[in-house]
Amino acid sequence: MHEYACAENEMSGKTALVISAHAADFVWRCGGAIALHAEKNYAVSVVCLSYGERGESAKLWKQDGMTLDRVKSARRAEAERAAAVLGVAEIEFFDLGDYPLVVDRKSMERLVELIRKAQPAFMLSHSRWDPYNTDHMRATSAAIEARMIAQAWGHNPGEKILGAPQLYLFEPHQTEQMEWKPDVFLDISSVWERKLAAIRCMEGQEHLWAYYSNLAENRGNHFRRNSGGQAGGRNSTHAEGFQSVYPRTVDEL
Amino acid sequence: MHEYACAENEMSGKTALVISAHAADFVWRCGGAIALHAEKNYAVSVVCLSYGERGESAKLWKQDGMTLDRVKSARRAEAERAAAVLGVAEIEFFDLGDYPLVVDRKSMERLVELIRKAQPAFMLSHSRWDPYNTDHMRATSAAIEARMIAQAWGHNPGEKILGAPQLYLFEPHQTEQMEWKPDVFLDISSVWERKLAAIRCMEGQEHLWAYYSNLAENRGNHFRRNSGGQAGGRNSTHAEGFQSVYPRTVDEL
Amino acid sequence: MHEYACAENEMSGKTALVISAHAADFVWRCGGAIALHAEKNYAVSVVCLSYGERGESAKLWKQDGMTLDRVKSARRAEAERAAAVLGVAEIEFFDLGDYPLVVDRKSMERLVELIRKAQPAFMLSHSRWDPYNTDHMRATSAAIEARMIAQAWGHNPGEKILGAPQLYLFEPHQTEQMEWKPDVFLDISSVWERKLAAIRCMEGQEHLWAYYSNLAENRGNHFRRNSGGQAGGRNSTHAEGFQSVYPRTVDEL
Amino acid sequence: MHEYACAENEMSGKTALVISAHAADFVWRCGGAIALHAEKNYAVSVVCLSYGERGESAKLWKQDGMTLDRVKSARRAEAERAAAVLGVAEIEFFDLGDYPLVVDRKSMERLVELIRKAQPAFMLSHSRWDPYNTDHMRATSAAIEARMIAQAWGHNPGEKILGAPQLYLFEPHQTEQMEWKPDVFLDISSVWERKLAAIRCMEGQEHLWAYYSNLAENRGNHFRRNSGGQAGGRNSTHAEGFQSVYPRTVDEL
Amino acid sequence: MHEYACAENEMSGKTALVISAHAADFVWRCGGAIALHAEKNYAVSVVCLSYGERGESAKLWKQDGMTLDRVKSARRAEAERAAAVLGVAEIEFFDLGDYPLVVDRKSMERLVELIRKAQPAFMLSHSRWDPYNTDHMRATSAAIEARMIAQAWGHNPGEKILGAPQLYLFEPHQTEQMEWKPDVFLDISSVWERKLAAIRCMEGQEHLWAYYSNLAENRGNHFRRNSGGQAGGRNSTHAEGFQSVYPRTVDEL
Amino acid sequence: MHEYACAENEMSGKTALVISAHAADFVWRCGGAIALHAEKNYAVSVVCLSYGERGESAKLWKQDGMTLDRVKSARRAEAERAAAVLGVAEIEFFDLGDYPLVVDRKSMERLVELIRKAQPAFMLSHSRWDPYNTDHMRATSAAIEARMIAQAWGHNPGEKILGAPQLYLFEPHQTEQMEWKPDVFLDISSVWERKLAAIRCMEGQEHLWAYYSNLAENRGNHFRRNSGGQAGGRNSTHAEGFQSVYPRTVDEL
Repeated sequence: MHEYACAENEMSGKTALVISAHAADFVWRCGGAIALHAEKNYAVSVVCLSYGERGESAKLWKQDGMTLDRVKSARRAEAERAAAVLGVAEIEFFDLGDYPLVVDRKSMERLVELIRKAQPAFMLSHSRWDPYNTDHMRATSAAIEARMIAQAWGHNPGEKILGAPQLYLFEPHQTEQMEWKPDVFLDISSVWERKLAAIRCMEGQEHLWAYYSNLAENRGNHFRRNSGGQAGGRNSTHAEGFQSVYPRTVDEL
Repeated sequence: MHEYACAENEMSGKTALVISAHAADFVWRCGGAIALHAEKNYAVSVVCLSYGERGESAKLWKQDGMTLDRVKSARRAEAERAAAVLGVAEIEFFDLGDYPLVVDRKSMERLVELIRKAQPAFMLSHSRWDPYNTDHMRATSAAIEARMIAQAWGHNPGEKILGAPQLYLFEPHQTEQMEWKPDVFLDISSVWERKLAAIRCMEGQEHLWAYYSNLAENRGNHFRRNSGGQAGGRNSTHAEGFQSVYPRTVDEL
Repeated sequence: MHEYACAENEMSGKTALVISAHAADFVWRCGGAIALHAEKNYAVSVVCLSYGERGESAKLWKQDGMTLDRVKSARRAEAERAAAVLGVAEIEFFDLGDYPLVVDRKSMERLVELIRKAQPAFMLSHSRWDPYNTDHMRATSAAIEARMIAQAWGHNPGEKILGAPQLYLFEPHQTEQMEWKPDVFLDISSVWERKLAAIRCMEGQEHLWAYYSNLAENRGNHFRRNSGGQAGGRNSTHAEGFQSVYPRTVDEL
Repeated sequence: MHEYACAENEMSGKTALVISAHAADFVWRCGGAIALHAEKNYAVSVVCLSYGERGESAKLWKQDGMTLDRVKSARRAEAERAAAVLGVAEIEFFDLGDYPLVVDRKSMERLVELIRKAQPAFMLSHSRWDPYNTDHMRATSAAIEARMIAQAWGHNPGEKILGAPQLYLFEPHQTEQMEWKPDVFLDISSVWERKLAAIRCMEGQEHLWAYYSNLAENRGNHFRRNSGGQAGGRNSTHAEGFQSVYPRTVDEL
Repeated sequence: MHEYACAENEMSGKTALVISAHAADFVWRCGGAIALHAEKNYAVSVVCLSYGERGESAKLWKQDGMTLDRVKSARRAEAERAAAVLGVAEIEFFDLGDYPLVVDRKSMERLVELIRKAQPAFMLSHSRWDPYNTDHMRATSAAIEARMIAQAWGHNPGEKILGAPQLYLFEPHQTEQMEWKPDVFLDISSVWERKLAAIRCMEGQEHLWAYYSNLAENRGNHFRRNSGGQAGGRNSTHAEGFQSVYPRTVDEL
Repeated sequence: MHEYACAENEMSGKTALVISAHAADFVWRCGGAIALHAEKNYAVSVVCLSYGERGESAKLWKQDGMTLDRVKSARRAEAERAAAVLGVAEIEFFDLGDYPLVVDRKSMERLVELIRKAQPAFMLSHSRWDPYNTDHMRATSAAIEARMIAQAWGHNPGEKILGAPQLYLFEPHQTEQMEWKPDVFLDISSVWERKLAAIRCMEGQEHLWAYYSNLAENRGNHFRRNSGGQAGGRNSTHAEGFQSVYPRTVDEL
């Protein structure tokens, strides 16, 4: 896990930024997108607003003598291993606490600074609605607000302001309950093994490995159907879905 | 206005298909998309399900001695002139009547045949909801159903079936009342003069020329904002918006 | 129940038109609006597309020896009595059958003719969605389509075309299931007794009398809250709610 | 596949009714519900409005010398085998044609008759919206309308009218695109092997076997999470999701 | 009003928890559900986040010499009397202030503690949207967030975590404006007299007694229609409606 | 810009209140409504919660040596000039900061006080959703909450409480992305020149002058269509659209 190399990136390639409420979200929900874009020489950064130490670490808490610090360390280590497998350029842990996650003013400023440095071609975060997990909604709100502030000429005048990167909402658990509707499917067949390896770094959540494998296969089916179906659809085996917040701007339909 | 050149198109380039409820709809709502793709060597076909002879020809009906046939002829001539200006490869008039438009089984079969011949890379039609104009909704329903039938192996077995082209819903009048939300803006700056020339072929609806010029300029503003805003957004002067019915399938976000 | 007096109305006052799927709908759902506007010298016309003879006449069918014709006659008589009580200027029965109601092309033409004659200041019909009663949705669709055709210069050229009257969707049973949301409450306190008398003409549906009395009282509460609440809200005792299909045009907010 | 045993059912147990647009839909989408309720002594009837002969039989059409009749026979045979495996009490084929499916007045009457005979405790059909397959929407519309007619005292007076059975919308392909949101998950773990066996009767659609196995496993995960999660959720391995059209009526929350 | 008897409840029966923004909300909106479940030996707890002392006590404030403390006392007394009538096992007043209600971190922890103690079979709170009363939305947000925290293994490790109780949103005033749609109706006929007695404890809001009586009767009508209608619907005279936030998990449809 | 003249207003006429997130919003979005109502002797007050100094002042920040105070002064001066042109009775600057705007408890109290003084016949603010600009959403939330508090008898007892003024949401940029749907169009033809003059006071945002001129013309088209269309619609040349939050209460439809 090397240092942030933003200046380089600006010269050599594109960047992308993932804003994840908890340490493991980025793996399940957009690990394929990360690995794929890393292979395309995007420098992909990940921000984990919390470790998910209280709410998403049940297996660890069932061990004797567990403490909050030990959970955080374990979660961080897992996330760093997964990030390395996926080819993440940099991962940052804001350690804001979870259940509930609270993004205060200072953390917002830090997030804005990070976005401006990264100048991402696109951003990734959670769904707008999630009645199972309000941390997810707060992360999305923070992503939207930070993007806005990063665009403001009067915020730290003199810095390079942000353009208008797309914000993709990655797939939540139980999509229908989250009012999430994908408008783009990304073929991750070529990096599926890498995503699976990253998933397996999440030792504390082994019960979800099969779930996300099934999901990726089924999204592959959706990719095939929407890319041509039985009349020449791409033979995608695994895919990920995303919902765009903003309209696209194109030169050709 | 030459004959359909589908075999050629299959060899030389892409095609697109517009399904328009009335003769003029394709001009106001996607004239820029047509002209732009024609310049990119797409063979763009247009189907006018009706001439809009009863409901969208007020100016003609105010003339003395007007008849339905004369209105149809005038509307057809206008539409052909506009199509020629835009570079439409072929325009067909189904003459199904308007206010109300009724797409019967036989016309549906004809539409399917046309779609299969064209094998369009994408299709264009109206919004899903329109309480001002039910013909528009019926055209959209027909487009969706014809697309489905064209994909069926058992419909005229032996013919080349359709893949999974996107269906873009072009911009209706009074977008908010139509529950229409664009998710893609197309830069039509380079062909704006051409679209404007086509608009001016619509002599019977002069009151709408300024309206659609204003609209294209304002959509240009939206294009700029969403393509980078004040931090390097494309300097689009005119744009058109579209709503996708189906998710996209991509290799890169 | 006198003859249609449209020419008079055009000179002397405004008109309104109710399009009701079954014979009794207009009483429960907008009887107050009818009575109130009748008092304001609107000539209010009612079209009953069917008698509700099969689906809304359970009490009659439980009688021995009942026939379809006898049910229709009974329903018609009730509706005429209620219309008279409410001050309806004219009531027409299209007798198109119910469960299901089918509005064919010829009936559509008749409806258009009637709308053009009436030149209503506003129209009233059912909610857009009703999974309990598809006749209601079909009546609304017919109302929207007939309004559109009546606006067409080329439909029976020479007739006076329709302007842009509001279409109000009156209150369905179980509003929330019908995706109906009122945006206007009408104070019917002054005509409540008249509406109640009309309701009591519906002898076959006595089980609904208390229901619609309760409803009118509670809508009166909503009227008071939205007209000023505890700081001077109108002391309405009974009200009816409506959902507008089209935006209003005003000179003052 | 024995004869309809409605009189018996009325004495001995409950019934359920599936209205399926094409021959195979009932297997993928509610095969678990069918098998489970059959085990609970429900007499489950299935209506296949069409065979899906044109639009859902690609594999058959790729064979030499295929005809419409041969496709229909093959599809019927598959569906009957699957129905037998699932314990369906009766399966009927309306043979109305597919792509597009058209439910005419006579077929509607037949459907109503069938519903009245069955007096189902609940009904199952497709999602309200499906831009990939308009047959599905038409089946749902037919189900809603037939249910309404079956409730009408004046439809074939003297017959036993229908009560108010729930209409569950079973899971469509690509749920999010269909605006479908499940509000109930049914644990089908105990009958999963039976559903899988039925799925395997669908020889023409082998590419979907894994898809629906994955789906059932993942819905099992959703069942566990919503039945108690890590604090005692039922250990469901496979589940099916459904969306209710009508509200429930209960004695206890 | 006796002390919390959670340990007992865990042995002897089920519990339910109402989270009410103001002191009287639980009476109007779910008094029937409380009384009914109390009769079924549920221990029903109520949390009043505020007394509604500023915003929902107009009648008191119109008295001379009224003070905030006196209003709070009066509201508390009324609520306690109503709770006793309904058979509430325990009522707690968080006294967080109203107009606006603010649920700070400490109160959230208290709410979580209370939920964990109660281990409710289901929870009840307000609608998601309410433009008339933001306190209601804040109470709902608090309920959702507290439920989530109560499920976290790492929140006060060692305590018994919460399962996945349903959160029912009880009926708001002016349902349609609140985007609230009931999916379950509860028959409260047997406890209606008890609910009415509780309503009458709300002396400061006498103008609402008739309103909520009307409403309960009309919801009874909805219950009858959805439980079988004219073909054997339950003869419910009074009912309450609820909207479920989460899907149900069942063994039988 | 004279002092607040509330006592006078109460005697002589009606008042209206605009709650604007940034200094210029009120000009673009409801300048016509302000000018029109000022001409009708409404005393229109404007609250600018911030100056838009950081996020909406790009042109100023591009000048050398710019400081936050200088930007604020320039924005304030522009806004005051525009307010004078429009006939605003009073404009207040809360100076709460922008990007992000934070409305704290104290500012909320100030806003409530101001609303109570004004006793507005109607209020104006932003759309409910805006993923481009969270300040806009916060302003709307503040408007809704302040309106509620102003209605509370127990908030500063003895003051005159607020009635139930409509809250109109004025037109956001890119309406469709904001989930904003106008239900009322106001004819501003007679004051268009005045609005244009106010727009031209916004020297820092010259790129938007043409945009909002185009928009007003096109909304004029919508006004004409909805006020009668080709059958006598008002000849409005410019209009503004608004979305009502609350239902209207009327005596005549």
